[in-house]
Amino acid sequence: MRYPPGNTHELALIESIRRASASRPAGRVRVGIGDDCAVIRPPAGHEIVVTTDFCLEGRHFRRDWHTPESAGHRCLARGLSDLAAMGAKPIAAFLSLALPRDTDRRWVDGFFRGLRALADAVSVPLAGGDTAASPGEHVLADIVLMGSVPAGKALLRSTAKAGDLIYVTGSLGGAAAELKQLAAAPGKIRKSGEHPQLFPAPRLSAGQTLLRRGLATSCIDVSDGLSTDLKHLCDASHLSAELVLPAASIHPLASGRIDLALHGGEDYELLFSAKPATRIPVTIEGVRITRIGTFTARKPRAAITIIDESGHRRKLTAGGWEHRFG
Amino acid sequence: MRYPPGNTHELALIESIRRASASRPAGRVRVGIGDDCAVIRPPAGHEIVVTTDFCLEGRHFRRDWHTPESAGHRCLARGLSDLAAMGAKPIAAFLSLALPRDTDRRWVDGFFRGLRALADAVSVPLAGGDTAASPGEHVLADIVLMGSVPAGKALLRSTAKAGDLIYVTGSLGGAAAELKQLAAAPGKIRKSGEHPQLFPAPRLSAGQTLLRRGLATSCIDVSDGLSTDLKHLCDASHLSAELVLPAASIHPLASGRIDLALHGGEDYELLFSAKPATRIPVTIEGVRITRIGTFTARKPRAAITIIDESGHRRKLTAGGWEHRFG
Repeated sequence: MRYPPGNTHELALIESIRRASASRPAGRVRVGIGDDCAVIRPPAGHEIVVTTDFCLEGRHFRRDWHTPESAGHRCLARGLSDLAAMGAKPIAAFLSLALPRDTDRRWVDGFFRGLRALADAVSVPLAGGDTAASPGEHVLADIVLMGSVPAGKALLRSTAKAGDLIYVTGSLGGAAAELKQLAAAPGKIRKSGEHPQLFPAPRLSAGQTLLRRGLATSCIDVSDGLSTDLKHLCDASHLSAELVLPAASIHPLASGRIDLALHGGEDYELLFSAKPATRIPVTIEGVRITRIGTFTARKPRAAITIIDESGHRRKLTAGGWEHRFG
Repeated sequence: MRYPPGNTHELALIESIRRASASRPAGRVRVGIGDDCAVIRPPAGHEIVVTTDFCLEGRHFRRDWHTPESAGHRCLARGLSDLAAMGAKPIAAFLSLALPRDTDRRWVDGFFRGLRALADAVSVPLAGGDTAASPGEHVLADIVLMGSVPAGKALLRSTAKAGDLIYVTGSLGGAAAELKQLAAAPGKIRKSGEHPQLFPAPRLSAGQTLLRRGLATSCIDVSDGLSTDLKHLCDASHLSAELVLPAASIHPLASGRIDLALHGGEDYELLFSAKPATRIPVTIEGVRITRIGTFTARKPRAAITIIDESGHRRKLTAGGWEHRFG
């Protein structure tokens, strides 16, 4: 016909699975999938936070490296992690999903199984989205997350001050290290242990606690890589930073690979700052917190200095996700 | 590298244009582009409505048929039309945009010019989104629109009753008729007159007036085609319908082509119902309103009967957008 032919049957299939994955109107979702828009009841005295993230096959996941459950999990985790970085509580998710012709039904089932498992674990309903036939050979997803924060209390990137100490939740480099394993041996998934690449854990509870207890002066999630995301904090707050990475901040899978911890990305940990006088607990909501640096005055441009165990200083260039391309 | 190489330079370009198109924090947008999430202040006593729509090259537009300004306009118009169908007032838009390698800078500029012109016309700020390198040869966009309605007042698909009269704003078939012209002579854009395919006008004011004055018992926008969208209303409200299409309801470009009016889609008019006793004005917010049918009891399944000028009745099969594929 006038547009390239698509796949009606498969569209109906995705739509049926998407509807099956959808929650019934409940909580703050008054009208979910099935009308022109979803209708959400915002909590009184709160602001709404919104984030959208592409999950494009070949860019954000690969069908030969990631299981379908992992692709679905990671798609939702990306958005949830942005909510976590604001200290927000999730309200609803919206998924736009386009599949190429002849996508295996089992792949689609697995994708939704992975997405739904994480959605159920954090009690976020799938409230809407869109479906389409992909114009090319790639699975295309865009995930939208909506959450809420008490008015005026969202954790921002732009509010750190010189002298604030820099902390990270959990550990870094694990996602990149596991990705290297998957690339080296596609289809071979380790049976035991954590899967920081395949099934990252967004730090929603930790972010909400940072907000509720007023602990953080700024916050971002480590999606693009520590060097890039710390640069984002520096730029937004007009600061420089000094970084010291203790062994505890590096994921066991990335042991001895400080480059993966610095530039690997996709760890979905929270990078935040606090006033020097603020007592930061050793763990927050069961997640270990490690101090990894200090914000300093910008002179004259934002710069990150990394200090190694011997006290040597060198300038760190942002080398995260954005720079993996090209 | 580990993922297929992308185009850092072009990503930075899109991002710079997207930021240039973004509104400064104002109105209900407290934090816009540049943090992990946008922060939105919801109006007191209102509910939030959300819609997401893919605009994928080769599915929803073609670069050889649509101008870049048209592609940008249509992308935003799709989402705005969903807000209109709820009777909602727009709050903010979020755009996820992925470009293939070597996309012409002028195309991207034109896309944003078209999107921004419509955004400015309806005062909706671009508050966030995502950018990526497209994994294939197609421009990929996903647009998210957020709006507000007085709590409990959203116009829904599911609330029509048997006996309610069916109305449509403006006229139908124009978008499909202009698409046929573009397909027959790519690149040849008519200099004068309306462009219902290239620059459809979402009926935001009409939708808001229907809501405010309590005129409509149900509403949907005609995006997939009258036959398909009326079927959606019938299914959601558990009704059948009788349809009579007067000449006034058919766009001049589609004159004599009732198939385009019935199945063409993309007209972005509002299809709504009202109680027989409700006086529906001849025009609402400057848009002509035409009565095109009646809802009847479902017996036993939802069915649409079309009645022609001679009084002949035949069953109408949904043949809109979904069925153009495949």
